[in-house]
Amino acid sequence: MEFPFQFDHTQPLSFGGLLPQQRSFDDSQVVILPVPVDRTTSYVGGTRNGPHDILQASSHMELWDEEMRADVHGVGIFTLPEMELPFGEMGALVDEIERVAYEVIGRDKFLVALGGEHSITPPLVSAAARRHATLSVLQIDAHADMRDSYLGTPHSHACAMRRSLEYAKITQVGIRILSTDEAQIMPQLNTSVFYDWDMRRDPHWIDKVVETLNANVYITIDVDGMDPSIMPATGTPEPGGLSWAEITALLRATAEQRRVVSADVVELSPIPGMVAPSFLCARLIYKLLTYRFAADPRAKRL
Amino acid sequence: MEFPFQFDHTQPLSFGGLLPQQRSFDDSQVVILPVPVDRTTSYVGGTRNGPHDILQASSHMELWDEEMRADVHGVGIFTLPEMELPFGEMGALVDEIERVAYEVIGRDKFLVALGGEHSITPPLVSAAARRHATLSVLQIDAHADMRDSYLGTPHSHACAMRRSLEYAKITQVGIRILSTDEAQIMPQLNTSVFYDWDMRRDPHWIDKVVETLNANVYITIDVDGMDPSIMPATGTPEPGGLSWAEITALLRATAEQRRVVSADVVELSPIPGMVAPSFLCARLIYKLLTYRFAADPRAKRL
Amino acid sequence: MEFPFQFDHTQPLSFGGLLPQQRSFDDSQVVILPVPVDRTTSYVGGTRNGPHDILQASSHMELWDEEMRADVHGVGIFTLPEMELPFGEMGALVDEIERVAYEVIGRDKFLVALGGEHSITPPLVSAAARRHATLSVLQIDAHADMRDSYLGTPHSHACAMRRSLEYAKITQVGIRILSTDEAQIMPQLNTSVFYDWDMRRDPHWIDKVVETLNANVYITIDVDGMDPSIMPATGTPEPGGLSWAEITALLRATAEQRRVVSADVVELSPIPGMVAPSFLCARLIYKLLTYRFAADPRAKRL
Amino acid sequence: MEFPFQFDHTQPLSFGGLLPQQRSFDDSQVVILPVPVDRTTSYVGGTRNGPHDILQASSHMELWDEEMRADVHGVGIFTLPEMELPFGEMGALVDEIERVAYEVIGRDKFLVALGGEHSITPPLVSAAARRHATLSVLQIDAHADMRDSYLGTPHSHACAMRRSLEYAKITQVGIRILSTDEAQIMPQLNTSVFYDWDMRRDPHWIDKVVETLNANVYITIDVDGMDPSIMPATGTPEPGGLSWAEITALLRATAEQRRVVSADVVELSPIPGMVAPSFLCARLIYKLLTYRFAADPRAKRL
Amino acid sequence: MEFPFQFDHTQPLSFGGLLPQQRSFDDSQVVILPVPVDRTTSYVGGTRNGPHDILQASSHMELWDEEMRADVHGVGIFTLPEMELPFGEMGALVDEIERVAYEVIGRDKFLVALGGEHSITPPLVSAAARRHATLSVLQIDAHADMRDSYLGTPHSHACAMRRSLEYAKITQVGIRILSTDEAQIMPQLNTSVFYDWDMRRDPHWIDKVVETLNANVYITIDVDGMDPSIMPATGTPEPGGLSWAEITALLRATAEQRRVVSADVVELSPIPGMVAPSFLCARLIYKLLTYRFAADPRAKRL
Amino acid sequence: MEFPFQFDHTQPLSFGGLLPQQRSFDDSQVVILPVPVDRTTSYVGGTRNGPHDILQASSHMELWDEEMRADVHGVGIFTLPEMELPFGEMGALVDEIERVAYEVIGRDKFLVALGGEHSITPPLVSAAARRHATLSVLQIDAHADMRDSYLGTPHSHACAMRRSLEYAKITQVGIRILSTDEAQIMPQLNTSVFYDWDMRRDPHWIDKVVETLNANVYITIDVDGMDPSIMPATGTPEPGGLSWAEITALLRATAEQRRVVSADVVELSPIPGMVAPSFLCARLIYKLLTYRFAADPRAKRL
Repeated sequence: MEFPFQFDHTQPLSFGGLLPQQRSFDDSQVVILPVPVDRTTSYVGGTRNGPHDILQASSHMELWDEEMRADVHGVGIFTLPEMELPFGEMGALVDEIERVAYEVIGRDKFLVALGGEHSITPPLVSAAARRHATLSVLQIDAHADMRDSYLGTPHSHACAMRRSLEYAKITQVGIRILSTDEAQIMPQLNTSVFYDWDMRRDPHWIDKVVETLNANVYITIDVDGMDPSIMPATGTPEPGGLSWAEITALLRATAEQRRVVSADVVELSPIPGMVAPSFLCARLIYKLLTYRFAADPRAKRL
Repeated sequence: MEFPFQFDHTQPLSFGGLLPQQRSFDDSQVVILPVPVDRTTSYVGGTRNGPHDILQASSHMELWDEEMRADVHGVGIFTLPEMELPFGEMGALVDEIERVAYEVIGRDKFLVALGGEHSITPPLVSAAARRHATLSVLQIDAHADMRDSYLGTPHSHACAMRRSLEYAKITQVGIRILSTDEAQIMPQLNTSVFYDWDMRRDPHWIDKVVETLNANVYITIDVDGMDPSIMPATGTPEPGGLSWAEITALLRATAEQRRVVSADVVELSPIPGMVAPSFLCARLIYKLLTYRFAADPRAKRL
Repeated sequence: MEFPFQFDHTQPLSFGGLLPQQRSFDDSQVVILPVPVDRTTSYVGGTRNGPHDILQASSHMELWDEEMRADVHGVGIFTLPEMELPFGEMGALVDEIERVAYEVIGRDKFLVALGGEHSITPPLVSAAARRHATLSVLQIDAHADMRDSYLGTPHSHACAMRRSLEYAKITQVGIRILSTDEAQIMPQLNTSVFYDWDMRRDPHWIDKVVETLNANVYITIDVDGMDPSIMPATGTPEPGGLSWAEITALLRATAEQRRVVSADVVELSPIPGMVAPSFLCARLIYKLLTYRFAADPRAKRL
Repeated sequence: MEFPFQFDHTQPLSFGGLLPQQRSFDDSQVVILPVPVDRTTSYVGGTRNGPHDILQASSHMELWDEEMRADVHGVGIFTLPEMELPFGEMGALVDEIERVAYEVIGRDKFLVALGGEHSITPPLVSAAARRHATLSVLQIDAHADMRDSYLGTPHSHACAMRRSLEYAKITQVGIRILSTDEAQIMPQLNTSVFYDWDMRRDPHWIDKVVETLNANVYITIDVDGMDPSIMPATGTPEPGGLSWAEITALLRATAEQRRVVSADVVELSPIPGMVAPSFLCARLIYKLLTYRFAADPRAKRL
Repeated sequence: MEFPFQFDHTQPLSFGGLLPQQRSFDDSQVVILPVPVDRTTSYVGGTRNGPHDILQASSHMELWDEEMRADVHGVGIFTLPEMELPFGEMGALVDEIERVAYEVIGRDKFLVALGGEHSITPPLVSAAARRHATLSVLQIDAHADMRDSYLGTPHSHACAMRRSLEYAKITQVGIRILSTDEAQIMPQLNTSVFYDWDMRRDPHWIDKVVETLNANVYITIDVDGMDPSIMPATGTPEPGGLSWAEITALLRATAEQRRVVSADVVELSPIPGMVAPSFLCARLIYKLLTYRFAADPRAKRL
Repeated sequence: MEFPFQFDHTQPLSFGGLLPQQRSFDDSQVVILPVPVDRTTSYVGGTRNGPHDILQASSHMELWDEEMRADVHGVGIFTLPEMELPFGEMGALVDEIERVAYEVIGRDKFLVALGGEHSITPPLVSAAARRHATLSVLQIDAHADMRDSYLGTPHSHACAMRRSLEYAKITQVGIRILSTDEAQIMPQLNTSVFYDWDMRRDPHWIDKVVETLNANVYITIDVDGMDPSIMPATGTPEPGGLSWAEITALLRATAEQRRVVSADVVELSPIPGMVAPSFLCARLIYKLLTYRFAADPRAKRL
């Protein structure tokens, strides 16, 4: 933004806030796309505020990552404003998300979409699959989201991964809840499932997850995949789930052994007055960017 | 509910709680219908919790009304459980609300619907108009809700009264906000409008409102028609609006000079930890019932 | 409090905080007694936090009152710590409150008790009546609290004023809700009742209230007597009620035309994160002290 | 509930919501009894809302349990409305709970009581002991609750297990806090105690807990027995305590090796705006039912 | 903002959101400057979030004003991002605000500053006084803020108007609280004071306020000048104060009879989960802009 | 406190509340000093309420510690009221804290300071270093706080440990976030750093931490050093960090192998309505006192 005078200002709704190195869209490797879709979530409302709160929290992050000994923001992180979403037919909305996502991914940017509810994922996966052959999806989630339709619509968050299956095979991690119908249909679907309690009994589960993935990977993180102790701010906070140590180890292993091409973080439904869950999402995204781009020549290392 | 043993229990989600005189559906004059539709509201979410919180609050009300010196609960107040709402096409939802509403109104019950968002009103008005000729609608609201479509759908809460116009003429009270498009179209619609600041300057506004009404009246109360000081718990809490004294005086005058046949209370979006707005809605509904049925032979008077 | 070194410190739980003129119990005209009884309140809990939050808020008040052009704190305001309350028999609790209250009132202090629920009032009135002949009670309240017993006990907050009637006649102001049983019994009780809607229609209601009072007056303020717009933080926030202008005018007229000997403020149930209701209670008490002691030689006037 | 027309509706305050298979009281194996007693809790109030919030959360649960590969709801889960509780003498309240509990347990139902505070447990244990000889109690709790009386009453939550000892021996798990008086008396009581930090050092603690139990087991879960990271919504949230993995493993081992006959979940004090703790309680209860009834012929298995 | 593809997006932190007519800084008549200073406020924190929440709320406003029958946004409303504020010496901060404010006011823009605490007002008044001779300040406030220093600094919010007096005479409206020291010094200062209770007794107070003002007027609105019933979200919410009808009438009279050159709205301290106060501030600012620019040729009228 | 009559009362803002054995300042081994400094914290406000909420929570603790089988309160725990803090120059504030701290530490008391923000630590360390030669600081924290200045001041919380380094060497535990500048400067500073992820990989990290410490140890606990799952109530809640088991084991090992001379707990920013974080701080401090004084002759042991 330019002004006819010197003006030191913040950038509150840009990922990372006022980054020391600011880059244009064209010169950025990473593009953040806020997609505050919120209409079929069934319990506690509020995912429409998710992208906003993640961005606001992100401006309070430090940029150095001691684990990887790198500061990757120099690769360019460009934050788009929130998509203006039509409220009518869900089909038109899905098409528009797909179009915009492909505009970004088709330019070989690393797209990170911020939900909003999980129903935004299928068009994002579709756009990634259009650009990248042999795509796998890594889904971190408490629920399978494999219903074929839910409460009368095929576009519900409860069907998000069933729709995504139309574009790529899926590896599901942290699953701990199914409907009885899903339990019956799951064995016939093109997925690899790592149930929460199986993971707890297998110290090598991360390696096994990565083995199931193709060369190119899209990561979708439904925040309820994490333990409600660190992530209470979601619609159906199922007990159990991934700890911070587990989810970061999984992301690191995936980023080091496969080529992550895009990601989304969905279903954050902020609790007024409590910033920890939004801050965790911001940090988690930056962790993923760090794992993904620590070796990039534009990253800073010591 | 019957049990194979004596069991003293509460009725937390029935209007008025454990009423001294409990009556069956058939023997009740009043039927409460919770319709927690919540999907096109644009700002702060949460109207889906409105009916639940109003009912919960209502069980803490006293039943005597000193203003009318009557306790009307003896006319029979029967509370239906929440409608199970399909999530898909809005059209199917609207049709189902109309069908259920007519099942009640067609049996000559006084139906009080609890929203949910304002988009539930058109089918309720439609059902009332099917049963009662020469119907007027009395709308208490901050917004005209007269857009022809909004964000791609004709069923948005922002279009609720434009849709209702298809079934009855409308008198609008407390209006203080229009879109620029609405401002242009309003003079051509079949409505009488009482703007908030005009009301403040005219001590006889209540009489004038009643004069515009037909013999049979449907009352729709968007809670944002009231002053945010007493009603902060709604999506777009516009400053200004009706006080408690004003809204109760208007309801009393209407009930005494016209035949009120049905009503709804919509757009309550409860603030966690704050019961006053839900309690006000419960009391407001009971006030309306008292004005309407104080002269009923089954009401108790001293 | 004394320390073996200089120590500038606050007094967060003393009324008014760190008053410029601090006085001992013996040298103080006013004594504040916190009585956080909270066990029979039926709806939203939390009156046990009322005294604490009023005191905390009071330390942020300015001490000058421009209406009376006086700063009365010099008469001495001594704040006792919270009573340690036995949890067993309600009868023992009532007796202990009466004993402590008389220790204060019997020394000719102006006692202000902070509740806690309304069930603390009868022993306070008893103590005042022991010391002051021809006592009247001025009750500001939404409810009559005239049940003879409630849910099995005669000591419920719903019976508070019925119990108090055993010690003094009562003038009730702001009443807008009765149970049907109360409506029947009220005409036979030794009370003067000013219903909320009658007050609204009579510009001289304050004079008429004062006329009903004896020479010595005990004032009990159930905070739900005030309009929920300024006092949402109470268990059953009935719409309607006294505005700030009305309640302060009533207190001033009473203090100027009668001798107020003691008071209580009860049923504040703080809403976490919202200080306005607690602040209002603190200011209301200081207003009452100002009206009562503005002419005292130890008050400062300009 | 029956209506004179077709009416698709929810069942918001029934455990599990609108279950696919709904059964009558007589035909149900499991009976849920809400007992919202809330009067002697000493710190943060609100346990009276516990049963309501657990039931509301439960309607958002999936019914399939992948760990046990079963959906047990077909055994019949019948939810009673909330008990109407007298507010007077605690003794009468305790007697009434005992009577109602025995009406259920005496019919060989599996009773799950929802508190409310821990003081409801002694009459529940009494009823279970009347029906089932050689009963043990498994208590999950942060506190011993072994005071003989507290603040003047023997019925306080702080005495709940001391009272329960009069009907059965007790195994206490997760204890991490005692009063100094309790520390002195504990060795002389008929209990087995597993302190929190001892459990952390002994990988076989679950087996040892089960070994202490008789053939028939009553389980009482004070939610503060769990780690505040997953259960902040309680009066005195002591750091430490059982994780989700630990408490479910303990319940499973107990259900598989002993005959669990009844249970309660108490001391949930919901935090407005935060559903995770209530959801956890709902899931925990359904986990217990699944462990208990997975082998029942009416459960569904794949 | 420009993108290499079509992208329909919102503008969440611009006043009014995605305005139909968007204008550049140079082409805008109105400039919004967020100044989230928050460091000397003494009670409830959080004014740093004020500007953010006002802007977020403003995007949900309708733009038509029926009272003035105008939509003024066409004059151009340009929103600057939040100032980056140094945290060290208060003096440097004050200087920087003055410099930036003059960059805007000196270009003959109508500057609206969003606080933050009241300590931002003196440099804003200074900048306005540099540009506009014979400037008056209209202060709406509960407190005089006329201390010469407070807790060791002359830059505290409690001194804001004493500092502003160095640049212009001041008319104070809604004052209801003074410190005893202020009460003594006030008569000697260059101010006109309209105390809250005097206003209540004088139906012509608005005319009298306007009479005290010079040709050019700077308006500073400390939100605590309004009644806590509509504005609970501030540090010291004093009972009493201006209603919505009063404050809008005052702004209209001032805008019609004098030339308002700049304004600020300060001391909003948002309550998490409650949008009404932020929404009111957004509407109040738009009301002021409407009164000020309704006659501008670029405003739309019907 | 003494009164002219018997008065059983609580002590809500004394650590531990109404302790069975109450001791004078001179006779107490432990002195609690609340220092609610809150002005440079950059994100979520509210650390000024930290000391108050810790003390309030502490009155609900049991005093027996089963892990150490001791009740140490008999050594005397004296709670000072909150320091009255000047708001002007930060330098004067720092000097005053140093003076008061030395008044306590110089009398050989064990001082526990309650923040407030981390900027209070340097003067506390200075006072401890004046009294105790060869002092080490054990810092538990998510951030290094090793900036030389931040936003224009050397006294920011972000510089707290850089300032403290001027008085003693420092061992940092739980660090997981650095600014890029800090990452460069850290190797040259007189500190031992235990990064969060290194600790997770080294089962002997506690021993190694203790080895780095001198004979006398000052412990500063920034609450964000703990996992946000147990400590969400702080300004920048970084994921990861110490669990309850880890932090208590570290404190115990330190107290048993070194001489802990003083401590502080800082950066608690309470979330309204959620007591668990404040309760945890109270318990953590009492745990530290128990580890430190279990062997004291005035402690009670069984």
